[in-house]
Amino acid sequence: MPLNDDAQIEITAFAWVPDFAQGVVRDLRVRWALEEAGLDYKVRLLGQQRPSEYLLEQPFDQVPCFNDGTVRIFETGAILQYIGEQRESLLPRDPQQRFRAIQWTYAALNSVEPTLINLLLIDIFFAGEEWAKLRRPGAVDFANLKLKRVSDWLGDKQWLEGDRFTIGDLMMITVLRFLRHTDLVAGFPNLTAYIQRGEARPAFQQALADQLAAYRENEPVAA
Amino acid sequence: MPLNDDAQIEITAFAWVPDFAQGVVRDLRVRWALEEAGLDYKVRLLGQQRPSEYLLEQPFDQVPCFNDGTVRIFETGAILQYIGEQRESLLPRDPQQRFRAIQWTYAALNSVEPTLINLLLIDIFFAGEEWAKLRRPGAVDFANLKLKRVSDWLGDKQWLEGDRFTIGDLMMITVLRFLRHTDLVAGFPNLTAYIQRGEARPAFQQALADQLAAYRENEPVAA
Repeated sequence: MPLNDDAQIEITAFAWVPDFAQGVVRDLRVRWALEEAGLDYKVRLLGQQRPSEYLLEQPFDQVPCFNDGTVRIFETGAILQYIGEQRESLLPRDPQQRFRAIQWTYAALNSVEPTLINLLLIDIFFAGEEWAKLRRPGAVDFANLKLKRVSDWLGDKQWLEGDRFTIGDLMMITVLRFLRHTDLVAGFPNLTAYIQRGEARPAFQQALADQLAAYRENEPVAA
Repeated sequence: MPLNDDAQIEITAFAWVPDFAQGVVRDLRVRWALEEAGLDYKVRLLGQQRPSEYLLEQPFDQVPCFNDGTVRIFETGAILQYIGEQRESLLPRDPQQRFRAIQWTYAALNSVEPTLINLLLIDIFFAGEEWAKLRRPGAVDFANLKLKRVSDWLGDKQWLEGDRFTIGDLMMITVLRFLRHTDLVAGFPNLTAYIQRGEARPAFQQALADQLAAYRENEPVAA
């Protein structure tokens, strides 16, 4: 099992987050990729108040950071690429296939995620605010358009580029999960099946279990 | 001069866009990188109504696409990496330096751009809407926080990772330019100087001139 206190690879994650964030915090992506790659890793857990020095590791005060003694980086897209370069099963070596997979990590993070996170913020963080109520219908329309674009591309393919799972799929599936508090994805049966195919992978199951286990161990005691 | 009708590399761009978008449409990033690399390219100009087949090239109906006969990809982050792999001056070969540069392209596109684009949309596309008026102060605060994070990291360094310009800087500078309709960046003198250093590069100047020249040639005739 890749979770190993003696591992060379260290990532950062939160010790605990509220329910709405459990199972979607971004260290999940990296845990999943490391499980797919069979690379041992350990986790440095951080509280909701990070020491100011953490900004020297992660200037945006987010998780995860990644450090294997050779490379010290943040941003899940870069980390997935780095892991992918060690495992052809996650990132093909052929130039066209390789850059198609890389392209999909950027597409997930820049062409899809911002629109889905916008709706998540409206529904979770700003639910009581007047602007959020006024904006929600337009934000839903925009999220549906993005889902349609991905659904139309995917068609009846198993993965984004055919029958081969890559870091591009891993990233896209974790991004699509940001809408789990809505029924929007259910409007696109091929996307629903695509997410389920990803979530059924043993590496995903292990990664999710390990993220959630840390939250359970560090759950704040009720006052 | 890299713009060359006989070039092997082809990118897509818009024939014309309204004033607010001129100089920030994303083909600028790729033109800039190709100029830095000294790689010839030609441009396939698209109208505001694309044929539906374009979605087979670019599932999100955006520009640019990139095709050099070897690799056919979209997403500017992936394209900059591909160009960078051909020019060590844009993407170092040392693993740590290489992945730091790659990391900054993701940071620009995922940790910074969505917040800045959100403000741009409020100010340009939704300016008359009630929700936009109510949301704007919070959107400004969030944009300022992102600028502070980048500014604090940059400090008095010339580029994000020191004295070496990379695709990470190229991406971050084009992202920061999305706020040019505001005076927010002026609140961070080191970011202002950083953007100016990027814009002063001859490759940027050529790329911008070539993007704008196409718009001038294809400006709609007033009715």
